[in-house]
Amino acid sequence: MGGDFGPSVTIPASLECLKANPDLNLILVGDEVILKEALSQALTDFQGRLSIVHASERVEMDDSPSKALKNKKDSSMRVAINLVKDGRADACVSAGNTGALMATARFVLKMIPGVDRPAIISTLPSIYGHTHVLDLGANVDCTAEHLLQFAIMGSELVKAVENIENPSVGLLNIGEEEVKGNEQVKAAAQLLKESGLNYIGYVEGNSLNAGHIKVDLIVTDGFVGNVALKTIEGAAKMFTSVLKESFGKNIFTKLAAVLAYPVLKSIKQRLDPRLYNGASFLGLRGLVIKSHGGADMLAFKTAIQLAEVEISQDVIRKVSEKIETTLANREN
Amino acid sequence: MGGDFGPSVTIPASLECLKANPDLNLILVGDEVILKEALSQALTDFQGRLSIVHASERVEMDDSPSKALKNKKDSSMRVAINLVKDGRADACVSAGNTGALMATARFVLKMIPGVDRPAIISTLPSIYGHTHVLDLGANVDCTAEHLLQFAIMGSELVKAVENIENPSVGLLNIGEEEVKGNEQVKAAAQLLKESGLNYIGYVEGNSLNAGHIKVDLIVTDGFVGNVALKTIEGAAKMFTSVLKESFGKNIFTKLAAVLAYPVLKSIKQRLDPRLYNGASFLGLRGLVIKSHGGADMLAFKTAIQLAEVEISQDVIRKVSEKIETTLANREN
Repeated sequence: MGGDFGPSVTIPASLECLKANPDLNLILVGDEVILKEALSQALTDFQGRLSIVHASERVEMDDSPSKALKNKKDSSMRVAINLVKDGRADACVSAGNTGALMATARFVLKMIPGVDRPAIISTLPSIYGHTHVLDLGANVDCTAEHLLQFAIMGSELVKAVENIENPSVGLLNIGEEEVKGNEQVKAAAQLLKESGLNYIGYVEGNSLNAGHIKVDLIVTDGFVGNVALKTIEGAAKMFTSVLKESFGKNIFTKLAAVLAYPVLKSIKQRLDPRLYNGASFLGLRGLVIKSHGGADMLAFKTAIQLAEVEISQDVIRKVSEKIETTLANREN
Repeated sequence: MGGDFGPSVTIPASLECLKANPDLNLILVGDEVILKEALSQALTDFQGRLSIVHASERVEMDDSPSKALKNKKDSSMRVAINLVKDGRADACVSAGNTGALMATARFVLKMIPGVDRPAIISTLPSIYGHTHVLDLGANVDCTAEHLLQFAIMGSELVKAVENIENPSVGLLNIGEEEVKGNEQVKAAAQLLKESGLNYIGYVEGNSLNAGHIKVDLIVTDGFVGNVALKTIEGAAKMFTSVLKESFGKNIFTKLAAVLAYPVLKSIKQRLDPRLYNGASFLGLRGLVIKSHGGADMLAFKTAIQLAEVEISQDVIRKVSEKIETTLANREN
């Protein structure tokens, strides 16, 4: 029911995913009157793979996390996360209110023992393909120990979904030299050096999209990560707007746009933010994927497919085991 | 002598500026043997407007700020800042080591009374033209009071150089709602509301290049500001690289590039980072402009021209007076 467009986006995206992956089963959670109406044909087409679970409430985009948690116990969000907790679903995908989703997921699923804070991880396009980044906004203040935990969890996720043995991990800072940064970053660097991870040192903001070397995972606190993520959104919007404006200026530039159309289309596809939609909550005892609230069908499909990959790669189990062995090592 | 390219960039840029502005006088500070050799003709051409002051040392790009300050008392950087202190120059422009320049400027020029920390301010391109942002990296940890001081100084600078009465000021945060952010940002928001500045509230990272409204000045701490700045550099590099790659793919795309050449050129010009080069140190009792170390001739020229504007608008005096009256008001 969530996101800016609700079932008008989530239902068609779900059906597309069912078509694309015959191993996928989906449970749509929400108002069963609306869902049954919209799914009548699909329930037959995908018999046994598509079902509905009723939820009488929905969390609004402007509900506070505490209100959602306390007053909306039968929200679609809460019911969906309950399904994960009860083992009836392998993941919950939502385009709803981020704060409410995080608070509810944390309350219902609980943390992986040894992890203090959940973090939000997603991918950004880069000149090398893409880069995984966390935390993208769950935690406004982080200690060095939190950043270490994020790095351990993130590294394990990248290892699983990218199938690379030893993902390179960079710590986001304002310079690459040892002396740069605040106390928390310097302390985190020390912990990362001793962590056994493939820690490559400090990286700067440009490494998110185009650093001088490829970095598989970039670790930062949720304040900086969220600002950086939205800064990239703004930069992308500016570039797109300048492209449009420049090619739309007059009859000659419009003609040039027609001639360059296949190229412009390929550029748009290469950088299409919808292909990077979907962020995972890491640190919980269950898989929750947050889609951008403004996601359209293609974007929401990407988020569901991210869940499919993380389920098939057993990310939550691997992260939990890694946390257990790493923390055990640290205590020895 | 500073920057990645030294006099091979700074000298031609200086001569271009002298040509462009007949009211400009320049003192080039550095190794007089090198400078005299390179400037022999120019010293005649610009007689009375161009002079050389010898400095026997130079700060290297990897010198620590403390080393530069203690051991290189006759560096070109130090001598140039001394000229500002002694009233022989109205501003110092340098492409040298940022940390050393800041430490030296602070040591020699001293702070404006009432300002605790200097901040670095510069402009970024935006869909509305451009946005001023501070702090871009001078301070890794800032209190709410520091952010307030940055806002007061930045607002006064924007007012002077843009000739707008009441610049809008936004505080960089991870959401626009009151509840968002860390303690420091929330406390700063309170101070800004009571400041008498045209404070418009929280803005997110996308507002740097393309927010939903125009913001004249965005205030943040130096860690977040520096990461955001470099994130935009990386995003720009990625977009340029995708453009080049897409138009260079094959004979057809190359043909499209030829046909679209005037448009591609105008896009490049509109977003040319060299036209945004030059950051001012705010909070000091004298004007110091930092150019990007990698600046080429055009970029360094932009930095000199920024100094020209700030001198002609008497920015340092206005900022000092504003700080005095604002702090006086705050103490009443």
